[in-house]
Amino acid sequence: MTGPADRDLRRRAEAVIPGGMYGHQSIGLLPDDYPQFFRSGSGAHITDVDGRRYLDFMCAYGPSLFGYVDPGIDAAYVKQLSEGDALTGPGARMVELAEGMVSMVSHADWAMFCKNGTDATTMAMMTARAHTGRKTLVLAKGAYHGAAPWCTPRPGGVIPSDRAHQQSCSYNDIPSLEAAVAAAGDDLAAIFAAPFRHDAFVDQAAPDPAYARRARQLADERGALLVVDDVRAGFRLARDCSWSRIGVSPDLSTWGKCIANGHPLSALLGNDRARTGAASIYVTGSFWFAGAAMAAGIETLKRIRETRYLEHIQDLGETLREGLAERAIAAGFGFRQSGPATMPLFLFDEDPDLRLGFAWSSAMLARGVYVHPWHNMFLCAAMTPADIQQALDAAEGAFADLKASRSSLGPVGKMAFLATR
Amino acid sequence: MTGPADRDLRRRAEAVIPGGMYGHQSIGLLPDDYPQFFRSGSGAHITDVDGRRYLDFMCAYGPSLFGYVDPGIDAAYVKQLSEGDALTGPGARMVELAEGMVSMVSHADWAMFCKNGTDATTMAMMTARAHTGRKTLVLAKGAYHGAAPWCTPRPGGVIPSDRAHQQSCSYNDIPSLEAAVAAAGDDLAAIFAAPFRHDAFVDQAAPDPAYARRARQLADERGALLVVDDVRAGFRLARDCSWSRIGVSPDLSTWGKCIANGHPLSALLGNDRARTGAASIYVTGSFWFAGAAMAAGIETLKRIRETRYLEHIQDLGETLREGLAERAIAAGFGFRQSGPATMPLFLFDEDPDLRLGFAWSSAMLARGVYVHPWHNMFLCAAMTPADIQQALDAAEGAFADLKASRSSLGPVGKMAFLATR
Repeated sequence: MTGPADRDLRRRAEAVIPGGMYGHQSIGLLPDDYPQFFRSGSGAHITDVDGRRYLDFMCAYGPSLFGYVDPGIDAAYVKQLSEGDALTGPGARMVELAEGMVSMVSHADWAMFCKNGTDATTMAMMTARAHTGRKTLVLAKGAYHGAAPWCTPRPGGVIPSDRAHQQSCSYNDIPSLEAAVAAAGDDLAAIFAAPFRHDAFVDQAAPDPAYARRARQLADERGALLVVDDVRAGFRLARDCSWSRIGVSPDLSTWGKCIANGHPLSALLGNDRARTGAASIYVTGSFWFAGAAMAAGIETLKRIRETRYLEHIQDLGETLREGLAERAIAAGFGFRQSGPATMPLFLFDEDPDLRLGFAWSSAMLARGVYVHPWHNMFLCAAMTPADIQQALDAAEGAFADLKASRSSLGPVGKMAFLATR
Repeated sequence: MTGPADRDLRRRAEAVIPGGMYGHQSIGLLPDDYPQFFRSGSGAHITDVDGRRYLDFMCAYGPSLFGYVDPGIDAAYVKQLSEGDALTGPGARMVELAEGMVSMVSHADWAMFCKNGTDATTMAMMTARAHTGRKTLVLAKGAYHGAAPWCTPRPGGVIPSDRAHQQSCSYNDIPSLEAAVAAAGDDLAAIFAAPFRHDAFVDQAAPDPAYARRARQLADERGALLVVDDVRAGFRLARDCSWSRIGVSPDLSTWGKCIANGHPLSALLGNDRARTGAASIYVTGSFWFAGAAMAAGIETLKRIRETRYLEHIQDLGETLREGLAERAIAAGFGFRQSGPATMPLFLFDEDPDLRLGFAWSSAMLARGVYVHPWHNMFLCAAMTPADIQQALDAAEGAFADLKASRSSLGPVGKMAFLATR
């Protein structure tokens, strides 16, 4: 049970927001003691509306890369805001940011900015269709590419024509990729790929370089475009497109989340091959040309180029991973840590309805550490070795709690759907 | 020809942005002397990157309702920013803003927030399909409802299945509406309507109350939802949904642009009938739960409730309209002013390629007044009677210029496509 301020806001929200909350920040599929509403954030911490402070391993589901309310990045935002944000045309910041992204991301020759990650993935789809004059997309089953009708993970309000001209494969499974491309025949417009498998509820998986190379090769053979959807992972694996680490360059990459450290900004980047197609689509938004988020993006890119933030969060992530593994083993749990160290996911063995994951996460929350029982997490550069030590101390207590309560844990009814997936 | 700073930025943009610019803020279809890039905004004015200042009748294409860089509204934004913007969950501001919108918009029982106007219209479509279990939308030909594949006004990157299950009618034409609904048969999910006809390139038109009532009646008869797309016009016609003025309540209304006075925020509002459908769709965005734009929205709603901003801009708009009409007649021009006084559109008679409109707009620009030759404009509450007088003085000079140059004006090649529409 959450605190009184949270419960009061939930009651009020129930009246004026359908279902009480929507989207990825609804706590509908989280343990009952997880708060829905937060008061503030600072650095690596969030405080809920009842005043409880947590070390936050969600980082706003990604946007916080350098920490909440970063003074330097927010100052860049506020300075531009004082001069003008959404105006009747773009400003110099847009060109500077496009130049900055293009200079940082090796496959990219151009950039287009937007607001949602879904805007960027939808623009990638449209660009590929315009470029090829074809319709079919190859997508990996279970991959998240946004929440528009063509890609949203749940069926409500989606009709079959929204998903026409899609072929699905299994991530890292080359024969399935080849079969999907073959099924597209002479109509292949694009192959979409997450930079690694970061689907909800299942172990994450690094990209098999052979799979990535085969995707590149198939796209080239068919004259289609290869799209890497880096909205979630961008700049947490590399100071470049995430697939630069395995030597595969896409034609298009999609970005969002942390490119302006939490200020609303996303982007589609592309190479010269895709430029004419991108120039031919009509996409826009009321706030897409606003300068303040772009000024924050420029400052964020500077920080990405000039600091060792990436090595820092990788080191922290590895310390966390090793310490958790030791503690899980000592307590006798099969505790699987998957994905990059900077974007970990934790799942317990033999836990089909997540009762172990829920109980352990709740025990972490009670100790002031916010972890997620089924979605990948995010580290941020504002975290310190002391924070990681706090998380490990909390985990030691949480594993002990879990060991004591394990045999008495009841089913988690709201996660029973997982067993039938 | 624009100034050297604008030309330099255009050259740089050409390299790193497809086509040099995209979307509604591209100056591709504006006179050649219109600047592409702006340095700043303040109140009712914008300054381009070459330092030229204009009285701005575009208001960022709508978002600026109380003027650029409004101290009170921006202070609310910055205060929330300093406490936390995008966090791991929403804050109290989201509930307060939903309560505020619901209390102000008479048909609405609930709200969902998003970032683009297109997000809101897409969510309306999905909600209607979820509510009815049907697919077909009735849309007026030429109406703008956003820039997603299902609605964007240009064909690049759009495939036929994106437009499946759509029937079109003509705005204000009841027989065409009835025919479109009949064509939908037993599959009608929603009737979409702009609050008035505000299509580009043609005269605007007030909604015929009989048309609006018939749309409501047909939706009710068929168990479908009626959607008023108030993204562009919201709060410039009423302190309520724009169709409240003609006594017709939609089930859903879509909002954006100025609801947070230029800060990135849009919304879908709905009634209890549509609540279950809305709760069943999965829509989300990385920045949709961020508090700062919501804090600005709360402050904007307060201003809307507590000031006479609406009467002020209506008065200014009527003064402008009357003064322009007098000056146009005196100069011998057929100058059509259409739409609400707060959102005017100006078109010249016998001007198929807009050569008169372009020349007159350029002459206004040279006199420090930014008008648009084919898109509706927007007034803002930061405008003063002295500003309107400046615009009228500029217009007197611009009409005189046009009279002198009329016989020597050449064709506007880039607008020749209008003749074939």
